[in-house]
Amino acid sequence: MKLVFTKSNLLSAINIVLKAVPGKTTMPILECILIDATNDGITFTANDTELGIETKVTGDVIEKGMIAIDAKFFSEIIRKLPDSEITITSDSMYNVEINCEKSKFHIQGKSGEDFSFIPNIERDKVIYLSQFTLRDIIKQTIFCTADNESNKLMTGELMEVKNNKLRLVALDGHRIAIRKVELKESFDNVRVVIPGKTLSEISKILTGGVEDEVKIFFTNNHVLFEFDQTIVVSRLIEGEYFKIDQMLSNDYATKVSVNKSEFLNCIDRASLLIREGDKKPIIVGINDGVMELKIKSMAGSMNESLFVEKEGKDILIGFNPKFFMDALRAIDDETITFYTVNPKAPCFIRNEEESYIYLILPVNFVN
Amino acid sequence: MKLVFTKSNLLSAINIVLKAVPGKTTMPILECILIDATNDGITFTANDTELGIETKVTGDVIEKGMIAIDAKFFSEIIRKLPDSEITITSDSMYNVEINCEKSKFHIQGKSGEDFSFIPNIERDKVIYLSQFTLRDIIKQTIFCTADNESNKLMTGELMEVKNNKLRLVALDGHRIAIRKVELKESFDNVRVVIPGKTLSEISKILTGGVEDEVKIFFTNNHVLFEFDQTIVVSRLIEGEYFKIDQMLSNDYATKVSVNKSEFLNCIDRASLLIREGDKKPIIVGINDGVMELKIKSMAGSMNESLFVEKEGKDILIGFNPKFFMDALRAIDDETITFYTVNPKAPCFIRNEEESYIYLILPVNFVN
Repeated sequence: MKLVFTKSNLLSAINIVLKAVPGKTTMPILECILIDATNDGITFTANDTELGIETKVTGDVIEKGMIAIDAKFFSEIIRKLPDSEITITSDSMYNVEINCEKSKFHIQGKSGEDFSFIPNIERDKVIYLSQFTLRDIIKQTIFCTADNESNKLMTGELMEVKNNKLRLVALDGHRIAIRKVELKESFDNVRVVIPGKTLSEISKILTGGVEDEVKIFFTNNHVLFEFDQTIVVSRLIEGEYFKIDQMLSNDYATKVSVNKSEFLNCIDRASLLIREGDKKPIIVGINDGVMELKIKSMAGSMNESLFVEKEGKDILIGFNPKFFMDALRAIDDETITFYTVNPKAPCFIRNEEESYIYLILPVNFVN
Repeated sequence: MKLVFTKSNLLSAINIVLKAVPGKTTMPILECILIDATNDGITFTANDTELGIETKVTGDVIEKGMIAIDAKFFSEIIRKLPDSEITITSDSMYNVEINCEKSKFHIQGKSGEDFSFIPNIERDKVIYLSQFTLRDIIKQTIFCTADNESNKLMTGELMEVKNNKLRLVALDGHRIAIRKVELKESFDNVRVVIPGKTLSEISKILTGGVEDEVKIFFTNNHVLFEFDQTIVVSRLIEGEYFKIDQMLSNDYATKVSVNKSEFLNCIDRASLLIREGDKKPIIVGINDGVMELKIKSMAGSMNESLFVEKEGKDILIGFNPKFFMDALRAIDDETITFYTVNPKAPCFIRNEEESYIYLILPVNFVN
């Protein structure tokens, strides 16, 4: 095999597929990037068996062939080469030579035949949306997925399509994040749970703007994202996702509007007093026109008041400050509005159109 | 005590003294910053008993007093407060209140009386130089000090003044770094060994330019740096430093001039093939007009050639690539010149004026 690339084409392709190279694995072949130039064109593939990424690379095929190269090492070498033409050659013993200007690397590759290929997905059921929107709604919800594998469904996000509406939902048992967007046209209904890791990696690869499209194909067990020169295939998480709509409610006793940055900075300061492992809540007292935040820990105490607009009853309610900060950071609005019923019931941060809803469970506190 | 500061004045003073707060200590009082407003003005002090820093802070003294506050916590709080006026109050029970706009923190301070004060240094023997120069020559030599405490002298740097010449020297047993600068006037001779940590912290605090001066005072056991509103006092390392001049030589068999960036990038690429703990040398072969670099390891092999200007004999010599890279990174010149005698003898990188000399010991290799 003999292929010629520009450094920038080569490096961007490596960076894309690198997202599907597992950190730890018992199968060394999965730590490789497969370079396939047996047919027309050149494709790079990586696959951790849950998530597979394949991308087409622009380059000249001088001699057809296929080789698997250790991904980390390959990417480090290419990154450090001069910004010039790079030639990759391999022989029948899987010896790889990488040439760039007067620099010559020899490393040992592996047979491409041993590689675990990406499953073939039937491209039947599909939706389209802009790369920009998909990236946005992933970033605005992904932090609510659970890291913990004890409930597999919580490590994923629900993607639901009804007519021309798409909803992305994440929850971790203490909070829920929901983002709704309108699609350009109506599609068949979809209700799948996509692994959080898949969505997180996709949000890093999607570089396109509002005009650039991503196609998403669904089968019973897989989802396939297609954009630019790249396809990402992921297994779905099996099982029935939580009944979200039953958890939502528009009733409230208190409605509060507050400047988002001031609120966020104030909670951020207060959380300085919380040492790791210490689960002190921030106590929010809402009266007419003023919200008072208080926190007390071994390290000291802090209180601060903010001007707010309030409707309804006064309330004193406690929160895990991190949950509130995460939600506020995911909202672009200058002013946010939140709704509470009582100190035991969920608090909702949402806008009028409900394009976003963040539910946060309050915590008990001793006043 | 009651003091009023602007956030920026307060924060820059904290950032300066923070450099002398020890990471780990069995004396909790050393983890504090001492705020002293008992006399005229306000000073902040931190002291890890080897290194002490004291800085004057601009602020209003409403009520005189003194308090010690946990440094890390204090700095985190101030950093997160709004960019506004900050009031610090303490009472006779060492309760500290920090006020900024509508935010109020209460934390527990400690008695300032328990603080370990900086020793009083006789300001007798002195030299002056520009802050810019001092920072530069520290950064250009400090990487050659040894981390290892097994030879205490190697963890420090020799500062030597003869008439109007200052020389800073670091060595770690495998290499030597020397920087020489000319002072504006002649001073009494100095020959002291300053702890590497002291120099490293000073290089981070010195923000001044070529016009801003730093005064350095010497006693038998201490060195004191005075600049802007700050003094830094450090113990000296005791003992007789290595006889540097006996290690230097201007004899050579081969003289090579090469483009610094090309050489550096080439070694950087080659060192990709060296895994941690693996002590593979880079082999440098010098012939007329061409230098060839080769490296071979478990991971693979690499070779690259560079155009050079050469005088004298051909040579094949091996180096620890890190040592060469460190030295090249510390040199600003576009072209560097190095001198070798034979594959066992030290290699010197130096300029005509010898304002810098980097000595690197070669390593054995199997060709």
